[in-house]
Amino acid sequence: MAADNLITSLQNPKIKRLVALQQKSAERRSSGIFVVEGFRELSHCLDAGYVTDTLFFCPEILGNQPEAQKVCALAETVRSYQVTREVYARIAYRDSTEGVVAEVLVRTLSLQNLPLPENPLIVVLESVEKPGNLGAVLRSADAAAADAVIVCDPLTDLFNPNLIRSSIGAIFTVPCLTCTSEECIAFLKRKNIRILTAQLQDSHLYYDTDMRGGTAIVMGTESTGLTNVWREAADAHIRIPMLGKLDSLNVSVSAAILLFEAVRQRT
Amino acid sequence: MAADNLITSLQNPKIKRLVALQQKSAERRSSGIFVVEGFRELSHCLDAGYVTDTLFFCPEILGNQPEAQKVCALAETVRSYQVTREVYARIAYRDSTEGVVAEVLVRTLSLQNLPLPENPLIVVLESVEKPGNLGAVLRSADAAAADAVIVCDPLTDLFNPNLIRSSIGAIFTVPCLTCTSEECIAFLKRKNIRILTAQLQDSHLYYDTDMRGGTAIVMGTESTGLTNVWREAADAHIRIPMLGKLDSLNVSVSAAILLFEAVRQRT
Repeated sequence: MAADNLITSLQNPKIKRLVALQQKSAERRSSGIFVVEGFRELSHCLDAGYVTDTLFFCPEILGNQPEAQKVCALAETVRSYQVTREVYARIAYRDSTEGVVAEVLVRTLSLQNLPLPENPLIVVLESVEKPGNLGAVLRSADAAAADAVIVCDPLTDLFNPNLIRSSIGAIFTVPCLTCTSEECIAFLKRKNIRILTAQLQDSHLYYDTDMRGGTAIVMGTESTGLTNVWREAADAHIRIPMLGKLDSLNVSVSAAILLFEAVRQRT
Repeated sequence: MAADNLITSLQNPKIKRLVALQQKSAERRSSGIFVVEGFRELSHCLDAGYVTDTLFFCPEILGNQPEAQKVCALAETVRSYQVTREVYARIAYRDSTEGVVAEVLVRTLSLQNLPLPENPLIVVLESVEKPGNLGAVLRSADAAAADAVIVCDPLTDLFNPNLIRSSIGAIFTVPCLTCTSEECIAFLKRKNIRILTAQLQDSHLYYDTDMRGGTAIVMGTESTGLTNVWREAADAHIRIPMLGKLDSLNVSVSAAILLFEAVRQRT
C-alpha cells in the first residue's frame, strides 16, 4: 500500500469529515453517506448489498484477528486508508478493539418498494426518541424474523451510530424504513394488515389476540405512548400485563414479547 | 435547617465518601451502605423497607417538582444535607434533573430466608458480567411478577449504581440474592423447582415446555453461555428460536420472552 494512503494526523480532512458523518445527521443526509464500525456490523452491511465508499483501518489494532484478512481483502477493492492507533482512537465510536471503520452509501427503502411475504409480521414504531432503543428493537425484530420495521415520524435518522451499534447490525438484516403515520396507516389498510396497537388502556391481553394473519404491532414513544391517530386506526388494542410494581418495559423488550407470541402462534 | 447542614465544597469528606460508595464495590461492602439516586428509585427502595442512612438534596434542582415535598418530609426524619448545584452535579450519576441522592443501608437476602409461594417462577443468572444487563433483567422480572432473581457466582455486586439505574428500581421490588451455582442447584432440587436452562444446543422450543409448576429459568453470561454444572443439573434445555441473521438476544430480552411465556401458560 502506498505511503500516501497512511493517515497520521487528526487534522487530516478525511478524518474530520468521518467524525462529522458520525456526529451529525445533517452531514449524513447531505452527503448520502453513513459510518459503520466493527467487523460484525460491517459484515452484515456488506452481506445486505450496501456499497462501501471508503474504508479506514488500523493495521496495528487489526493485528492477527481472524477478520483481519477479510478487511485487507476489502481494502484492495475500495478506496482505503491506513490510520495510526492515535487516529483510530479518534474515529472509533466505542472501544478501539477492532480496527475498522467504513463510510458506506445510504440506501433508502420506501413503502412502495418494501418486499413483503403473505401474512407479514411488521413492527411499527411511532416517533421513538432514542436511537439506542430503536437499534434494540431491530435486534428483537431480527430474532423473530419480522418482515419489516417501519418508523413513523422519526426523531432520529436510521444511520445514527448509536442505532447501528445497539442493533449490532440488525439495521442491515431487517428491512427498515421511515414514513409518516398517515402514509403507514394507509399502506397497512390497503394491504389488509391488521393493526395491533400496544397500549395499557382499553386493551386485550396480547396472548388472547390472533396474530396469525398479516400483523403490524405498533408501539409508541418511551414517554408518551401512541398518539390518537394510531389508537383510532387500530383493529385491536393489546397490552402486556404489568404484574409487578413498575409501570413500563423497555420498548425493545415489549417488541420481543409481542413478536415472539406471533412466532409461537404461527408455528 | 441549620446552616451547617449546607454543603458547598466538593472537598467535603461526606461528598468524597458518597462518591467512593458509588464507584467502589469494596467501599459498599465494608461500610454496608449503598447509594440510590432519583425519586422513582428511592421511592421503590423505601417502599421495600430499606433504611436511609443519609440524604443529600439540592433545593435549587428539586424546586417545585411534585416529589419535592416528599423529599423534604423525608429529610426531616433522617440525617440530611443540602448541597449546592455544583456539588450535586458531582454526586449525581446521571442527568442532574431530580436533585436527590441517598445513602441506604445494605440488606442481604439469602436462600434460607427467601420467601416463595407455591409454584414459584424464578430467574437464575449465572455470572452475568454487566450490571446494566442485570438491572434490565430485574425490570423484566418485575413486569412478569417473578418471585425471585438469583445471581450465581456474580461478577458484580447487587448495589452497583448502573444496576440500580438500569433496573429503574426493580432491584427493590423483586427479591434478589447471590449465591454459588452449587448452592442454588441444591436449593432448587430440594424445593422441587424445575430447572430450565436457556441454551441453543440440545434444546426444545421454549413454548413447547411446561412452565406451570415451580420453574427456574436459568441463563448464562453474555459471552460464553451456561457452564456444564447447570446444563447437567437441568430438567429441560430450552431455546428461543433465532430466526434472523444475528445469533443472540440481549439477556433481559430473552428473560422477558421466557418469563411471559410462563405468565401466558399460567393464566
